[in-house]
Amino acid sequence: MALLYLSDPARGATWARHFAEHAPDIPFHMDPRSCDPRGVRYLVTWEAPADLAKRYPALDVLFSVGAGIDQFDLSTLPPDLPVVRMIEPGIVNGMVEYVTMAVLALHRHLPRYLDQQRRSLWQPEAMLTDAAARRVGVLGLGVLGQAALMALAPFGFSLAGWSRSARLLDGVATFAGHGELDAFLSRTDILVCLLPLTEETWGLLGASLFDRLPSGAMLVNVGRGGHLVADDLLAALESGQIAAAALDVADPEPLPPEHPFWRHPGILLTPHIASMTRPDTAAAAVLDNIRRRRAGQPLLGLVDRASGY
Amino acid sequence: MALLYLSDPARGATWARHFAEHAPDIPFHMDPRSCDPRGVRYLVTWEAPADLAKRYPALDVLFSVGAGIDQFDLSTLPPDLPVVRMIEPGIVNGMVEYVTMAVLALHRHLPRYLDQQRRSLWQPEAMLTDAAARRVGVLGLGVLGQAALMALAPFGFSLAGWSRSARLLDGVATFAGHGELDAFLSRTDILVCLLPLTEETWGLLGASLFDRLPSGAMLVNVGRGGHLVADDLLAALESGQIAAAALDVADPEPLPPEHPFWRHPGILLTPHIASMTRPDTAAAAVLDNIRRRRAGQPLLGLVDRASGY
Repeated sequence: MALLYLSDPARGATWARHFAEHAPDIPFHMDPRSCDPRGVRYLVTWEAPADLAKRYPALDVLFSVGAGIDQFDLSTLPPDLPVVRMIEPGIVNGMVEYVTMAVLALHRHLPRYLDQQRRSLWQPEAMLTDAAARRVGVLGLGVLGQAALMALAPFGFSLAGWSRSARLLDGVATFAGHGELDAFLSRTDILVCLLPLTEETWGLLGASLFDRLPSGAMLVNVGRGGHLVADDLLAALESGQIAAAALDVADPEPLPPEHPFWRHPGILLTPHIASMTRPDTAAAAVLDNIRRRRAGQPLLGLVDRASGY
Repeated sequence: MALLYLSDPARGATWARHFAEHAPDIPFHMDPRSCDPRGVRYLVTWEAPADLAKRYPALDVLFSVGAGIDQFDLSTLPPDLPVVRMIEPGIVNGMVEYVTMAVLALHRHLPRYLDQQRRSLWQPEAMLTDAAARRVGVLGLGVLGQAALMALAPFGFSLAGWSRSARLLDGVATFAGHGELDAFLSRTDILVCLLPLTEETWGLLGASLFDRLPSGAMLVNVGRGGHLVADDLLAALESGQIAAAALDVADPEPLPPEHPFWRHPGILLTPHIASMTRPDTAAAAVLDNIRRRRAGQPLLGLVDRASGY
């Protein structure tokens, strides 16, 4: 009947208050030693132990504390255990802010001007590119991809999105499946990766994909470091096929100090801060899902074990 | 009866095409030697010669080729000559993009992360600040200030604006005149300067204004370099009163290579690229104003010679 939260304790204090106030009937534990593992029905965590099923025999739902679930090895989890990724307004808002900032920064050549600043060079470009002439394409049309496109729309960018299965979005040219990936890439000047990391998407942002973009395209990776082939990006920046990139994720994290991304003038690098779970709204989202589960309603953010996201 | 355009010739070619197509009755000149100065009725320029009235005795309207008119010495111009600043969609869109990028960059601590990138440091902050808790204040509520606030609204920032005379804007706390400047500043975490440069606003962004902001406030200057007292900003960054700044304008421009702004880790510096006149839409805006003038309608962007903007 209990919920066990295994993540950052400072954030956990907010979770504890939320459950104490709104669900006093669900015992909330943050310390595994203080709770009987046989009574754990809901587990909120970033990583799952390999012996999860044995350790928590009464487990009813596994909640990821983050937007992704690629950190779980799904093959080791009981096949009928519901796995739920985090969907809550804090994550969405943070991602929308970051993607908008990164797309505008690339659109307005901020990496070039930061490089000029380092070299004390005052060299304005002669003419701006109109947003309508800048084709932005988002890979991944889940909650985050859709929210990012909605935030970019008022600036007048020419918008497109690609997803595995077909979607219709107002004001966005949508493409679906492998068959339409080439058409999507060939019309994309700024590519935003918001895909989940799965066996299929691992290493997708590599030489073969870069070559299908228009020459001088730009990249925003807010998916996972594993999506990107680092050496291929460096080669594409060197050749000019990719003009600049904004990267919020890396592989591994933290990125080692000797990695060439740190010092590359064409790369804006941030340490995985685009989006973070907000403890108050995240606790509310999990509690809502627990109530849905008890009422026999479908869980929001339930992972499809076949597709892996 | 003629229009004389005295600005960048590459852009001028677009102007010439626009007038040839849409107003063949108005002779369009870019080379002062090829046109009789006594026939010039409309002058489009960035700078105005001191002997303007003598040189162009038939001049009916003086059009600035940019959004500002602070480059004109109004005291030397005939008092009844209409002076018009540039208001056209290209300028507005560019400014909206830049201000949104700069506010999001300060909100999300981009200067700190850029400094970490230079030092190969992977140090994510523990928690994001919600946009609703970030109070953004825009100085200047003309066409550009209003458009910037409208673009920032969807992100959920707490918005305010200050102008000389009172304005009402949906979803924005507005303040007016010197009497309400303190109240505006004391609730502003990110200050955006979009004021015209006049005798009254010269040096406004100085120590006394910075001290009235909350400690750790941030600054976006997209007005004019003359608004900012450089030494006061450096002192405020040193003390922490100002946490970071995004500056698109400088005094002088280009900023000399030895200026301390170039190398300051708390300053994002761009070379006056926030917003540029788009030649096609600018030509259309001037032609529209010429037609309004001929029809006896009020000119859009007419400068009030008393207030100086």
